[in-house]
This record gives sequence, C-alpha cells and structure tokens, in this order.
Amino acid sequence: MKIVVDAFGGDNAPLEIVEGALLALKQFKDLEVILCGKEEIITKILNGRNERVEIVNADEVITNDDHPTEAIRHKPNSSLVVAYDVLKNREDVIGLVSAGSTGAVLAGAIMKIGRIKGISRPALAPILPTKKDSDVIIIDSGANIDCKPINLLHFALMGSAYYSIVYNKKEPRVALLNNGAEEEKGNELAKETYPLLKNAPINFIGNKEGGDFMSGDVDVMVADGFAGNALLKGTEGAVGAVISILKKSIKAHFLSKIGYLFMKKTFKDIKDRVDILSKHGGSPLLGCKKLIVKNHGSCKRNNILASIEKTIILHENHLNQRIEEAINKLNSQENA
Amino acid sequence: MKIVVDAFGGDNAPLEIVEGALLALKQFKDLEVILCGKEEIITKILNGRNERVEIVNADEVITNDDHPTEAIRHKPNSSLVVAYDVLKNREDVIGLVSAGSTGAVLAGAIMKIGRIKGISRPALAPILPTKKDSDVIIIDSGANIDCKPINLLHFALMGSAYYSIVYNKKEPRVALLNNGAEEEKGNELAKETYPLLKNAPINFIGNKEGGDFMSGDVDVMVADGFAGNALLKGTEGAVGAVISILKKSIKAHFLSKIGYLFMKKTFKDIKDRVDILSKHGGSPLLGCKKLIVKNHGSCKRNNILASIEKTIILHENHLNQRIEEAINKLNSQENA
Repeated sequence: MKIVVDAFGGDNAPLEIVEGALLALKQFKDLEVILCGKEEIITKILNGRNERVEIVNADEVITNDDHPTEAIRHKPNSSLVVAYDVLKNREDVIGLVSAGSTGAVLAGAIMKIGRIKGISRPALAPILPTKKDSDVIIIDSGANIDCKPINLLHFALMGSAYYSIVYNKKEPRVALLNNGAEEEKGNELAKETYPLLKNAPINFIGNKEGGDFMSGDVDVMVADGFAGNALLKGTEGAVGAVISILKKSIKAHFLSKIGYLFMKKTFKDIKDRVDILSKHGGSPLLGCKKLIVKNHGSCKRNNILASIEKTIILHENHLNQRIEEAINKLNSQENA
Repeated sequence: MKIVVDAFGGDNAPLEIVEGALLALKQFKDLEVILCGKEEIITKILNGRNERVEIVNADEVITNDDHPTEAIRHKPNSSLVVAYDVLKNREDVIGLVSAGSTGAVLAGAIMKIGRIKGISRPALAPILPTKKDSDVIIIDSGANIDCKPINLLHFALMGSAYYSIVYNKKEPRVALLNNGAEEEKGNELAKETYPLLKNAPINFIGNKEGGDFMSGDVDVMVADGFAGNALLKGTEGAVGAVISILKKSIKAHFLSKIGYLFMKKTFKDIKDRVDILSKHGGSPLLGCKKLIVKNHGSCKRNNILASIEKTIILHENHLNQRIEEAINKLNSQENA
C-alpha cells in the first residue's frame, strides 16, 4: 500500500513531515511512503532509515503567499505538484497527505485529480470534540465560500459516509447549520437546502444552531464554507480563549497554583480532548477521485502519522465507493 | 426618566422581570418604570413596593410559538404590543426593555417604532468577553438573515457608535467577519462590503476570522445575521462545552476535587468573565427611532437591572444622535 507525502508543505516541513512518515512506516508494516521534496535534505533527515521509502525529487516549494491556481500551474516542480503527479499517474498510490497551503491543495485536487462523478464540489470536513463522548465534523469548513443547495446536499452525503467510517456508526446524525430549529428558518440557501436534505438517503435530524455544534447531539454539521468557517474558527478560538482565561487566573491566585498541581490530570484530560488533531490527523478533502488529507500548516509528526493512518482506514473502508453509492442512490430516487 | 418594561416577556416572567425593575428603581433615583402586563399579578408581586411604578394592563402574552409579525398585528393587547404603544405614544419614555420572543421584539420595533432615517435595517449587537481585558460585540447576530453590503455598512456604523459609548472608547476597532485576512477573501457579500467599510467613517481594521472573535484584537465584528449567529452561538456553545468537560473531569479524579477547592477563586473569575450577560444586560436593537433592549429569554432580575441601566447610559450618551451623525457623515462623503 503506497501513500505519497508532500514533504515540504507546512510550517514544520520537512523535518516533522518526514519523521511523521517514519512513524507511520513503523506502525503499518505493509505501507510504503513516497516523499516528494528536495532529495538531498530528505536523505539527510532519513539518515539511513529509508526502508520502504521512495524519494521523488522536487526542488520548489509552494508557500501561502503563492496564488493557489497559479502555483499549481507555474510551479510544476514544487513538492505539492510533484506529489499530485505521483498520485495521479501511479495507480498503486492510494492517497496523498499534505500540510501545505489549503488553497493550493484544493486547487491541485481539482486540477490534477478531479471530482467523483456526480459530486459538484469537494469539501473539507474537520473533526471537533463535543462535550459528550462523541466527536462532530463540519462540512464544508472553508473550501467552498459561495454555495448552492446542491453543494450542501453533496456535503451531507459525503460527510455522512466519512463519519460512518471513522466512527463505525451506521447512520450518523446529519444536521443543517441554521439560525433556529424550525423548518422555515434560515437564509435563502438554508431554506432551499432543507427539503433536499430531508429527502436525501441520510439520517437528517433537521436544523441545528451553532450552539448545538459541541453539544454531542450532532455528528455531521452541514454548512456553506463561509458560515462553516466562522463556526469552526469561532469554536476553536473560544476553546483557546477559555483555557487562556483559566491560565491567567491561575497565575493570579496563589491558592489556585496549589490547586493546579492537584488538577494536573484534569488539565491533561482537557488538552487531550481538545487537541483532537493529533489523534485524528488532518481533514480529508472529500469528493475527489483519490484520497487527499490536508493537515494543518502547524502540524507535527504525530499529526502526519494520524493522517496517514486515516488515509489507510478510508481506503480500506472504501470511502469513495460509498460516496459514489450515495450519489447513485440519490439519483435513482430523483429518477423514480 | 421613564422606561417601559414588557413584564410578561421571557421564561422567568413576570417575577424576575418585575424584581429586576425594582432593583433598577432602587439604583436610579430619577427613574420611573412602566410595567406592561396583567395588572393583578404585577400588583401582587409588587406587594406595596410601587413607588415610581406605573402599571399598564395587558391581558395577552406573545410566546415563541406565535408568528412574530402576526402576533404584533393580532395581539394588540399583549404585554409587548402594549409596551410598544407606550414607547411610541409617550414622548417622555426613553426606551423599552423586553425578554420576549426575539422575532416579535424585532417585528414590533419595525412596525411600531421605525428605523432611524438612513438606516436600512436595525440589528442586534450582543457583547462577549475576550481573552484579554476588553469585550467584543457582534453585529448582526441574527436579526437580519439575508443581507446586502449596505446593511453591513450600517451595522458597522451603529456597532462603532454603540461600542464607543459602552466602553468609552473613541475609535473602536471594527472588523469584517471573513474566512481569511486578505482583502480579496470572502463570499460575494464580504467582498462587496470590504471597500464600503474601508471608506466609512470608522476605525476599520480589515477582515478577521472567527478565531479572532475572542482574541481581544477586535471590538466590533461585522457580519450578516446568519454567519454572525453561527459565530455567536458557536462561541457560546464552545465556552459551555469546555466548562462542562472540565467539570466532568474534575468529578472523575479525586485529586482534582481537592484541587478544585484551592481553585475556587479561579473558577469564579471565569464564571464572572464568561457570564457577561448579567453585567451588560441584553442586546440593544440598534437603528430604531427609540431605544429598545432585548434580553435573553432565560434572563433573571440582574439582567433586567443591567438592561435598564444600559438604556439609561445609551440615552444619556445620545446613541441615536451619534448614529444619525455617522449616517450624515457617510452621506456627505458620498456626495463630496
């Protein structure tokens, strides 16, 4: 099983990316990794640990300052474009992992790999913790800023298929992000999307508000990428803000410092629960012909390990086949 | 100075509403309160404490199940409509406080009171804490679900005027909610709004993401009511979720329970910082000809006290006059 990794994408590339790939190779004995990037530097990091590693040289790097589409077009020798070429041209490569610029990863996916037949737009679906034991995904979280109802319908199908694999849950609860629970609520987009989701082959539980996102009552939150991004980033920011207020207050009170020593386990719990990225790796770009997992730019080796693991799980559980089946089911419903 | 209060709006009406009004009367010696609702019940709660209190009887109540516009039209004897009539017809009444259905409060404001000349849409601007010492408001937070760029421009002017009064800050930092910091980012609405805000007589600091909401780097976050609602509710939900995860973890670990005792002061700090509603009361419906403050449905007496106090502050600092001046300045810029 082969996975291609963009070794020069991300703030901590190439060291953390290469080390993450090595961790994955240790864990999955039938895995082979293709690292794209400056061969000399990668070889130095590998320092002899090159079993089941192939390097494909790429001298350029795409940065966040590059215009995504133009970068894909005019930097053919960048680590990301070379990785996409490997993914595209070699049938035995099951997926790509990159922590590079989100825009460029998206542009490359569309220009180099293409969409699953019937899917209008690929979408990003990051995972967040909830206050119960379950996690929640939001789709789309920023790949598609202006959306039509059909896009949101496809997001719902893809999100449901993805969640059901990652959490082994047969009928994930899919909700539409809205400004109220009632069916008639929402902006034009939400109002037009509601009946589509109601009739789709998913477990649609209706409208949910931003406040329900971390409630544990929703598995898949469907939104356009603009509102979805506001919800995702707002949630992450709020979690960080509360922890920051907590720390500041602890520093201010002597007794709290003593209390902190007793509560270390609790703080570790929260850190583990909130820092879900290292457990789950990046977010897949759902709806492309091949598996693509986008990591956060600041990710470290454990995130890369988790992303490679996720690629394997999604491959072994036939994510794309499931998405195709859902689209076919939808189309046959419409034609019935 | 007279303020009219919808004594039968909200989950804890009429008891908490009436008690809140009484707290305000204790604090502001030149305040008079007009309570609208079932006279007999209000009189019972007052139990003789009726100095500077006037009751205007209203036998009906508007609930969340009522259709807002129809309720305003067909329940002329409801506590909210009667309160709006008092606000409209009596010149000496400076403002209205209600914890009733948001939709009905909005509908009543537009149908009974009307907009300030030049303002396209009134908007709600709730306050949230940040991780620094400052607070942040979001405008609009759900009153206007489908928006045009001109609406967002007016939200920015109104939000800036409001924030500058409440926090005595000359040039609040106004940002546009977006999915990235760069000028060209955003959905169609955000892209068209950006140049309007850039040229407006406000301290516009550019695009900010949901993650910047609680950073302390923004004073006034401008958004359409759909995305703004997602951000606001998502943030509130996330804060609640973190605290809930914290509590659950404390219960699970014995040492943490001991730690908790030492950290009581810290937890009180956080509660105070997050529970900003009781400090600030409800959110004003900015842009109406008279002051209207909408409280959360679940509010208690302290929130009502804070809302009455806020109405007084906004009145004494000429909020509506400032909004009119900002609109005039904008128009003279456009004509220049």
